[in-house]
Amino acid sequence: MLSKPLVLYNSLSGKKEEFKPLKKNHLGIYVCGPTVYSNVHLGNCRTFISFDIIYRYFMHKGYKVRYVRNITDVGHLEDDGQDRINKKAKLEKLEPMEVSNKYTNDFKDTLKEFNVLPPSIEPLASGHIIEQIEIIKKIIDNGFAYESNGSIYFDLDEFRKEYKYGKLSGREIDELISNTRELTSQDDKRKPYDFALWKKADSKHLMKWTSPWGIGFPGWHIECTTMSHKYLGEKFDIHGGGIDLKFPHHECEIAQSDALSKNHSVNYWMHTNMLTLNNKKMSKSTGNNILPKDLISGKNKVFKNAYSSNIIRFFFLQAHYRNVLDISEEALKASEKGFNKIVDASEKLESLKENKSPESNYDIEGWINKCYDCMNDDFNTPKLIAEIFTVIKLINKVHDGKESINSKKIKLLKNIFPVFISEILGLKIDKDDSSDSDALLDVIIRIRDEARKNKDYKTSDIIRNRLSKIGYNINDND
Amino acid sequence: MLSKPLVLYNSLSGKKEEFKPLKKNHLGIYVCGPTVYSNVHLGNCRTFISFDIIYRYFMHKGYKVRYVRNITDVGHLEDDGQDRINKKAKLEKLEPMEVSNKYTNDFKDTLKEFNVLPPSIEPLASGHIIEQIEIIKKIIDNGFAYESNGSIYFDLDEFRKEYKYGKLSGREIDELISNTRELTSQDDKRKPYDFALWKKADSKHLMKWTSPWGIGFPGWHIECTTMSHKYLGEKFDIHGGGIDLKFPHHECEIAQSDALSKNHSVNYWMHTNMLTLNNKKMSKSTGNNILPKDLISGKNKVFKNAYSSNIIRFFFLQAHYRNVLDISEEALKASEKGFNKIVDASEKLESLKENKSPESNYDIEGWINKCYDCMNDDFNTPKLIAEIFTVIKLINKVHDGKESINSKKIKLLKNIFPVFISEILGLKIDKDDSSDSDALLDVIIRIRDEARKNKDYKTSDIIRNRLSKIGYNINDND
Repeated sequence: MLSKPLVLYNSLSGKKEEFKPLKKNHLGIYVCGPTVYSNVHLGNCRTFISFDIIYRYFMHKGYKVRYVRNITDVGHLEDDGQDRINKKAKLEKLEPMEVSNKYTNDFKDTLKEFNVLPPSIEPLASGHIIEQIEIIKKIIDNGFAYESNGSIYFDLDEFRKEYKYGKLSGREIDELISNTRELTSQDDKRKPYDFALWKKADSKHLMKWTSPWGIGFPGWHIECTTMSHKYLGEKFDIHGGGIDLKFPHHECEIAQSDALSKNHSVNYWMHTNMLTLNNKKMSKSTGNNILPKDLISGKNKVFKNAYSSNIIRFFFLQAHYRNVLDISEEALKASEKGFNKIVDASEKLESLKENKSPESNYDIEGWINKCYDCMNDDFNTPKLIAEIFTVIKLINKVHDGKESINSKKIKLLKNIFPVFISEILGLKIDKDDSSDSDALLDVIIRIRDEARKNKDYKTSDIIRNRLSKIGYNINDND
Repeated sequence: MLSKPLVLYNSLSGKKEEFKPLKKNHLGIYVCGPTVYSNVHLGNCRTFISFDIIYRYFMHKGYKVRYVRNITDVGHLEDDGQDRINKKAKLEKLEPMEVSNKYTNDFKDTLKEFNVLPPSIEPLASGHIIEQIEIIKKIIDNGFAYESNGSIYFDLDEFRKEYKYGKLSGREIDELISNTRELTSQDDKRKPYDFALWKKADSKHLMKWTSPWGIGFPGWHIECTTMSHKYLGEKFDIHGGGIDLKFPHHECEIAQSDALSKNHSVNYWMHTNMLTLNNKKMSKSTGNNILPKDLISGKNKVFKNAYSSNIIRFFFLQAHYRNVLDISEEALKASEKGFNKIVDASEKLESLKENKSPESNYDIEGWINKCYDCMNDDFNTPKLIAEIFTVIKLINKVHDGKESINSKKIKLLKNIFPVFISEILGLKIDKDDSSDSDALLDVIIRIRDEARKNKDYKTSDIIRNRLSKIGYNINDND
């Protein structure tokens, strides 16, 4: 039995489609990365873990993947029209690059903690100013942007004479107006829904570059169009991001691509859904937020217990990436239990042997195909995890001698189980050394206590001395 | 007694000078970072560990430090005139940014392993093309560079009419000729010693940008002038790098700065010396090389044993940064012993108490001043380490009850010892959990073996069962 072909949900068509690469066995994927003006929040981590699964699965399937994930270190404006990093730099009295460097390090360290693989290319917006200027020039030449007082705006009226705006989100440009209503210092636009490709910088602005239109800085949307095209070409396979980027960011990217030429296109758009806390969106701006490191250390006011990065990753994977997921103590505890079952089964599997009980009729090869079917069905990790728990039941039964499977099947299971757990889901099941020492120390202390109870002071003294030699001091008077 | 003022060896004057910052309590420092076209080698690690000490010590002294260390991801040409990253990208059939991303990650991960603090700003050469073009324009405007066939060269004849070339190294421009003799595709230069600020890119070249002079890419020397000025200003305090960069790289940087204006200057130039292996320079190009990870894992053909990153760091710090250091098994073993003494003393210090032996006349405050004097004397870490070993003798004597010091002195020592070890030298003295489990397991196994020898099978079975429960399986038949 062969597993089914890979299908994924394309936000552009609104349905699941079979994945067909532009170039056989090659995948080009671009994912919108973070704006590095504060510590990465947990909702962002969910997004990048979701795309990590997609990246890992394509590599597992033998694709040569070029995975581009940008760092937005310039041009992401807040509602008051200020550049987020520029503003933070002023608040912290730092050079903008000090701000972005600090939070880029935090971002990369945090994702590493969650066992997210680094992308192939991680370009900075500030590192591609020339390229952005080149792209803006082309859009102007094509008649879809205009200069006004040193800034360049995308001309939506002109664009809509030839193209449709709103292909992806189905939203209308009226919404772009309400979306940009709050933005000050954009009075030089012809129409309120026109968006900035290049903004003139005033003297107070810290991040600015020379351009054909004077000193300024690029708009937010243009960086992704620029860097995706530079590293993946005019046409590429997948463009992804968090669902909050669908409108207006990705819609504007599509408009920019269309404005460049009819040859520009992305075949599949993928959007990951939100993580909520108390059933509200987690967000830096609203404060309904928990930092990953505080969740891991347990030092936070939201949750009673600490949860390892592995358990948090597993918790995320227990929901499908397109569904909203609410994080709660109860849910995390359940994930911890589930994850421990996987670790336990992995250990049992290592030493699993045939026994004399009746042979199970469990179809391992069929199970493997079912697992692949889950992943091939739009990367359905919760379904895959459910399948994994069915085989864990089998492992436990064989381990306890209640059923048996032959050595060929055991070998197959030993080979494939870590592929799903570690390679595809990216879960680390290494033994934790510190809990190891605790458990070992506990064994020793119990033996010594029993020796003392039996008045075998010779043994208890030997144990105390040997422990002392390796740095553990026992004080019986405590 | 107050400790002495901080003096450092200024390569520009060739002598030790008292450090005086441009702005009180602020330090601006620029260090030339790696060219990211292969895994970082151990010699580079020594360089960046040396500057980490300098960075840490200034911060410890209360300076607000802006530490800029660049990543060279474009423009560093090989002897055949090819860009190193461009060439590697062709060899590996990768986009140049994939090459630089891979090795930038390796570089950052490796330095983290050595407990090197990240700099405040880590700019990419490819991320500052506009700024480099601006700087080149100014040098042309000032009459010290010329265009030739789409490339821009620094005009050394013109420069030497007003300025001296060779201030730092004392080397003459004749050496620049022999240095560049091998470079092909520079036939368009007026004089063989002129160096490229901007190179025209041919169609095969992968990394290229538009410029006022056509499509091309920046020279290597100009990136450091550009990025140091952008982030630290025209004048700044310290410029550092490995000694191999003194000529021609830093000499060319000084020429470029002079060519910009008389206001451009660096107050102190600092150069770290080489790490040798078998008394030869460690170098990627000659193959006399060992990768940091292979030294740490012990999987290499050069050394018999594995050495932790902490021990390697300690080994480096046992030599002064301006001296050549040769790495050998014997020296690493000695460092391991020394480092273990420090770990041992740190642990003893934690529980150190007054005892009834005669009070030592050891002058703790005087010792603290001596330690600071070592660091204030051009960051003399080997001298500081020697001082640390004198106080370790005291700690051992008090721990063994052979001498005593009063509780005030103990408190002082408890406070200051970790400052020198962890904060300034950056050594991690946390207990290593995995060796802990090994030692504990060893204790248990010996107790069980003794129980079996005494035919106390009840105890030996209990031990086996309890170990089995926590995942350790003992097979007596082995």
